[in-house]
Amino acid sequence: MEKKAKAAFEAGIKLGALYHQWVGTPISPQTAGSIEKAIEGAVGLQPYVDEISVKIDTSQMVLNTFGYSELSGKMFDVKIKTKVGNATCHAELKLEEDYPMMKITELI
Amino acid sequence: MEKKAKAAFEAGIKLGALYHQWVGTPISPQTAGSIEKAIEGAVGLQPYVDEISVKIDTSQMVLNTFGYSELSGKMFDVKIKTKVGNATCHAELKLEEDYPMMKITELI
Amino acid sequence: MEKKAKAAFEAGIKLGALYHQWVGTPISPQTAGSIEKAIEGAVGLQPYVDEISVKIDTSQMVLNTFGYSELSGKMFDVKIKTKVGNATCHAELKLEEDYPMMKITELI
Amino acid sequence: MEKKAKAAFEAGIKLGALYHQWVGTPISPQTAGSIEKAIEGAVGLQPYVDEISVKIDTSQMVLNTFGYSELSGKMFDVKIKTKVGNATCHAELKLEEDYPMMKITELI
Repeated sequence: MEKKAKAAFEAGIKLGALYHQWVGTPISPQTAGSIEKAIEGAVGLQPYVDEISVKIDTSQMVLNTFGYSELSGKMFDVKIKTKVGNATCHAELKLEEDYPMMKITELI
Repeated sequence: MEKKAKAAFEAGIKLGALYHQWVGTPISPQTAGSIEKAIEGAVGLQPYVDEISVKIDTSQMVLNTFGYSELSGKMFDVKIKTKVGNATCHAELKLEEDYPMMKITELI
Repeated sequence: MEKKAKAAFEAGIKLGALYHQWVGTPISPQTAGSIEKAIEGAVGLQPYVDEISVKIDTSQMVLNTFGYSELSGKMFDVKIKTKVGNATCHAELKLEEDYPMMKITELI
Repeated sequence: MEKKAKAAFEAGIKLGALYHQWVGTPISPQTAGSIEKAIEGAVGLQPYVDEISVKIDTSQMVLNTFGYSELSGKMFDVKIKTKVGNATCHAELKLEEDYPMMKITELI
């Protein structure tokens, strides 16, 4: 039980961290790929992260007068897998109705 | 079990989030109190947070040429309590040797 | 001329910095005051800042399912005065149509 | 004169913004390149930016227990060129003694 809870805790840390590190970044459909890679690379450095995939939903981008947008929580589609000993947590950050929801999808 | 894991997950989200939201903020011993209050207020708005206490260790501040410092991970002493149903998670963010460590201190 | 340009440069630094430091913070009408104070305190520490006033437009807040909002660029109404020698720059960050515009309002 | 001051103001905005957007990001010598590209791409979207170059000084990285570091102001070596009409501002963000200094290097 302790290891499962820790795997869930660690997944939460990484999702909360990436959200608040990156929200507000200037972004466009053309630069979304480099931001996805940079986030994956940064999160992948952190302890207990086994897999991380970041997609930014460019259809959520509303371009401003100057032709770009800002990364917002609603654009994230993130899947993460953390491992602590033999416990594994799968979690995600994804738009649900109007809220960028973080949740555990599997904990074994 | 599911509720305990979720309480741990939610605690992780809040600690990861506050760390990456606030690190880098210009700060001095004189303004530390207002930053502590602002962080506590912001985290307290988020779901499942039952208690939050933020202390910033001003002894870790090295003032630059212009007489101020920058909020860094090593300055944080944070205690959080999350509740999901009847499950409760106590967690903290605190300097351990040279690393700002996040960990679960009690999960019941 | 050189001092005026530097006063303008310094005003730009502070507005760009505060925007990207604070966007994404969980916020509600009840906590807006403490965030305003924290930002004013943080910016006031930085070199060449003579005056800083931060108002957050709570009417721009759309509360999510959990009853809070996130600080976004559109909520800012910031006025700053920087001084470099005898040069003074007044600048602001304020919503203009749909863009959070930063501009110099007076440079003397 | 007005256009020169605005070019300086815009350069300041971009440097202040990138600093506070990106400081705190987990980073290592292996991921520095992807972060440099992501920052260049993001800043390049913003108005009045003509050229932007971002180098992260990996020799400043002190790896923690888990083998990574955090992007800090001291690691930045940034050069930016902004244009407003026929005015051009060259500015930079670079470590000077112990302070990550932002300054105008040429304004014409």
